[in-house]
Amino acid sequence: MTQSEILESLRWKKFPVLNDGFVSLVDVMGDDGSIVQAARVSYGEGTKKSSDDRTLIRYLMRHQHTTPFEMAELKFLVRVPMDCWRQWIRHRTASVNEYSTRYSIAINSTYQTQPDEWRRQNKSNRQGSDGFFDRETGERLTEEEKKFHQTSRELYESRIELGMAREQARKDLSLSTYTEAYWKIDLHNLFHFLVLRMESNAQSEIVQYATTIGEKIVRPLFPMAYEAFLDYSLKSIRLTRLDQEVIVRLTESGKIPAKMDDFLKAIDESWKNLERCRERDECLQKLQRLGILEK
Amino acid sequence: MTQSEILESLRWKKFPVLNDGFVSLVDVMGDDGSIVQAARVSYGEGTKKSSDDRTLIRYLMRHQHTTPFEMAELKFLVRVPMDCWRQWIRHRTASVNEYSTRYSIAINSTYQTQPDEWRRQNKSNRQGSDGFFDRETGERLTEEEKKFHQTSRELYESRIELGMAREQARKDLSLSTYTEAYWKIDLHNLFHFLVLRMESNAQSEIVQYATTIGEKIVRPLFPMAYEAFLDYSLKSIRLTRLDQEVIVRLTESGKIPAKMDDFLKAIDESWKNLERCRERDECLQKLQRLGILEK
Amino acid sequence: MTQSEILESLRWKKFPVLNDGFVSLVDVMGDDGSIVQAARVSYGEGTKKSSDDRTLIRYLMRHQHTTPFEMAELKFLVRVPMDCWRQWIRHRTASVNEYSTRYSIAINSTYQTQPDEWRRQNKSNRQGSDGFFDRETGERLTEEEKKFHQTSRELYESRIELGMAREQARKDLSLSTYTEAYWKIDLHNLFHFLVLRMESNAQSEIVQYATTIGEKIVRPLFPMAYEAFLDYSLKSIRLTRLDQEVIVRLTESGKIPAKMDDFLKAIDESWKNLERCRERDECLQKLQRLGILEK
Amino acid sequence: MTQSEILESLRWKKFPVLNDGFVSLVDVMGDDGSIVQAARVSYGEGTKKSSDDRTLIRYLMRHQHTTPFEMAELKFLVRVPMDCWRQWIRHRTASVNEYSTRYSIAINSTYQTQPDEWRRQNKSNRQGSDGFFDRETGERLTEEEKKFHQTSRELYESRIELGMAREQARKDLSLSTYTEAYWKIDLHNLFHFLVLRMESNAQSEIVQYATTIGEKIVRPLFPMAYEAFLDYSLKSIRLTRLDQEVIVRLTESGKIPAKMDDFLKAIDESWKNLERCRERDECLQKLQRLGILEK
Repeated sequence: MTQSEILESLRWKKFPVLNDGFVSLVDVMGDDGSIVQAARVSYGEGTKKSSDDRTLIRYLMRHQHTTPFEMAELKFLVRVPMDCWRQWIRHRTASVNEYSTRYSIAINSTYQTQPDEWRRQNKSNRQGSDGFFDRETGERLTEEEKKFHQTSRELYESRIELGMAREQARKDLSLSTYTEAYWKIDLHNLFHFLVLRMESNAQSEIVQYATTIGEKIVRPLFPMAYEAFLDYSLKSIRLTRLDQEVIVRLTESGKIPAKMDDFLKAIDESWKNLERCRERDECLQKLQRLGILEK
Repeated sequence: MTQSEILESLRWKKFPVLNDGFVSLVDVMGDDGSIVQAARVSYGEGTKKSSDDRTLIRYLMRHQHTTPFEMAELKFLVRVPMDCWRQWIRHRTASVNEYSTRYSIAINSTYQTQPDEWRRQNKSNRQGSDGFFDRETGERLTEEEKKFHQTSRELYESRIELGMAREQARKDLSLSTYTEAYWKIDLHNLFHFLVLRMESNAQSEIVQYATTIGEKIVRPLFPMAYEAFLDYSLKSIRLTRLDQEVIVRLTESGKIPAKMDDFLKAIDESWKNLERCRERDECLQKLQRLGILEK
Repeated sequence: MTQSEILESLRWKKFPVLNDGFVSLVDVMGDDGSIVQAARVSYGEGTKKSSDDRTLIRYLMRHQHTTPFEMAELKFLVRVPMDCWRQWIRHRTASVNEYSTRYSIAINSTYQTQPDEWRRQNKSNRQGSDGFFDRETGERLTEEEKKFHQTSRELYESRIELGMAREQARKDLSLSTYTEAYWKIDLHNLFHFLVLRMESNAQSEIVQYATTIGEKIVRPLFPMAYEAFLDYSLKSIRLTRLDQEVIVRLTESGKIPAKMDDFLKAIDESWKNLERCRERDECLQKLQRLGILEK
Repeated sequence: MTQSEILESLRWKKFPVLNDGFVSLVDVMGDDGSIVQAARVSYGEGTKKSSDDRTLIRYLMRHQHTTPFEMAELKFLVRVPMDCWRQWIRHRTASVNEYSTRYSIAINSTYQTQPDEWRRQNKSNRQGSDGFFDRETGERLTEEEKKFHQTSRELYESRIELGMAREQARKDLSLSTYTEAYWKIDLHNLFHFLVLRMESNAQSEIVQYATTIGEKIVRPLFPMAYEAFLDYSLKSIRLTRLDQEVIVRLTESGKIPAKMDDFLKAIDESWKNLERCRERDECLQKLQRLGILEK
């Protein structure tokens, strides 16, 4: 399929997210070839001979040569709860036209959490979730929320009927209320959005949006760039100066996979004698993941 | 007073806005002299002799030489209802750290509209207000809102007590809930914010914030630049190509102030024979304001 | 013609600028309809009935509702002397991939000024030109320049032949040397570039580039938006608070067109008794242009 | 020393770079404490108890929570050859006021390369240098360049004397000509500049500027943030998905440090059977650096 056939197969298709949200591709400028085209103006014609498109795209991504990825542009129409939109809009390098509740009646739809979706507060990570409430509690919470949304909407509509200015009537809408927006962003900045929002520490709701955008839309439109993004950005890990020194001390000792005792001897002096040390924990997890330290 | 004395007299002082909001200056880099300093690197030493600081600042503002105004920077701490913050955050060229309701319990305060502040929808301007409701209605609306805020907060707190993740419990907060943020912006972009948000078509709530920032903080810190901003930006009007042609036709006829009949003959052909024509109405208002057309 | 037919008729077509430069359209996202589409998500369906596309686009431009114009994007390939590129690149809200003289041999072409193009320094405007040198002088200057470019290129090539690093060999290239770049920008920011660079005070060379982009490329692709840009931005004038007060005083006096004496009485107090006053001169020019003051 | 004492000891001090360039601090907003202050508005008061400033700053840097670093701002005056400035100015998120050769006579100083500084083209890295020319060649090159700069300046000055417009006379200045600019940037974006320009693949000239800014100015002003930047950004390495898989295969085999043969068996299938494979070479270097592979 050519890019324009893929575009036509995707355009305006609503990929559902949450109970009533969606993401939808409106337009695209460029394809994998546009990235290569832009890179070659910098690197000159010589690169044409020695490397094919995929190799060049992967090289650019691996070395964070980001400007060629700015040469592709995507435009979406999205429907998102305002709560989630508050996170989304923090990505500043994008163009936005949002549905105006100053001008029009607010969209009559809210993000309703299903009984099996209510999450418990994570004890160790203050900004995370950890597991779900039981079914019975979930049902009560969903019921309670449904009633609250009704109350909230009734208040809004009674104000509108009274003739209150829309810009003021909206002030007590629930953050769960859906909004819609055109959102236009270049591929480099979109990857930055995805790396932050497809990640396991991001909030579940925005992860669902980001993953849908990545998997359903970016992957078919930019297969080489998306693959490179997964390999070199989303699934990469960073070893700090201190992590590297721990590994060097362990590999020098020659006993790999190392045992916890070896690890505790090899770590940075500043990590020793601390009861809690987040950096030490992070290093430990990386080393276990790499098989350098026993699990 | 030196800039640092003015800074010390303003720093952390909470200028109240709405029922429980505020703006507060945290830090500033530069003064009127910094604008001049930066401009002189471009224009060379020659300017020193021929123009004093005020004249140069006014020249820069009048001719939209904006880069020297970027050389001053201001940092604020603000408390704003989320509703209003949604407009604020659309100004992308600024740095923001906002209070996180993912991490912490939401601020227990909402923007409560007072009985005499409830506004009617404007009939002609879809996104504006037009006058206030009577006292009795206002009291009922304020009472209703107070109860709703209580219901909303109780729902939130019952979720928190149950152990629900904060990132999820917050989803039904009212848009009236206050948030807080550090907001850092350069003087050029701050003036852009002010020209859009101190303006009569902006929403009353954000006008109050913008005016407080402009009058209470920018004016004492940058007296020359602020004066130039008022004279050449906020209080300026723009004459379009078509407006200019209307004026030329009227002044050529020699009967100024012109009468409505003269105006209707002098207007652009494309405006004639239209029942409604917003551009014609705008031109009419400008000409009346200038005394070129009778009121 | 549809947008894609216009695109195909323009794409890769090299519009020549200067002796060996060009601008060329590579790709475009959107048309006049995209601006309208984005605006309508904000203003709601209501606008569809009451205003057609052209009226809406003109309204948006007139009131500086800029975000819908960000929804269209253009990509160019340009060849520009480095001297001129130094001005171009100051527009930060754009994506750029430039030909790399670190990686490749510098383009063997320079901007050669023709005998009738050598300009005299403007006496009153320190950053402007004022008329041309005579033919004879022009021929001498062109001859001199040609020799200098040859000397400069020989130095560069001798370094390259010697095996000097390209990143260092380039250090003495003349600023007249051509560079090439992909340049991608949204329509709003392109209009901002055009309003600054098509203007009479901009340097002749960049005016030629900007005018070519505006007239040859933007006009056919975005006929409604470009027309609105000319009417409400490029050809508009701004009346400051002080200008307006002068006009009001003159129209109140009832003698329009006013004479110089009336003008000198009507001006701002702060402008009086000054030998030189640029703001007074600017006001005078605007009033003459409008026929409010005698020429 | 307090921040303002450090500022006073640094302000306007010219740190020399190259033969006649410099960087100089003009102003600063904030210190390490400002980063912490901004972070705490997000994370709430709770963080105050459990972590001190240094730990928090290191956590933010390690996890790329970049917004608090935007809350500090630095302003420099720099003198840089135009050649080098062309790279510098590609960092778009900064404010710039540059010396104008349209308005003023070009600075009469060029970057002159010393006899022992002339570099050979790198054979394998097309955009790099590799060693120096011998003294004798170097002396000839320096002599040649000196003459060329003289010729170039004479041409420029003869044009100026003739009364040529400065905006045109400058067109044949050598790229070695120094320019000056005020450059203002927030700490986050400055670290981004430093990580790209202090790095070994960057061009020597800009490395010297970046290193001077980092070591002489940022380090004393932001000791905790700068240390974190070195540990977690500049001196970190990134392991791609494929690198990680190679390491896992090697650690599973249990023979660490591995031999070249083991490495060649453990690498990604797609890297095998290729004569040249840059990604394989990069992986190899990382593994040797970590002691996982024999040198």
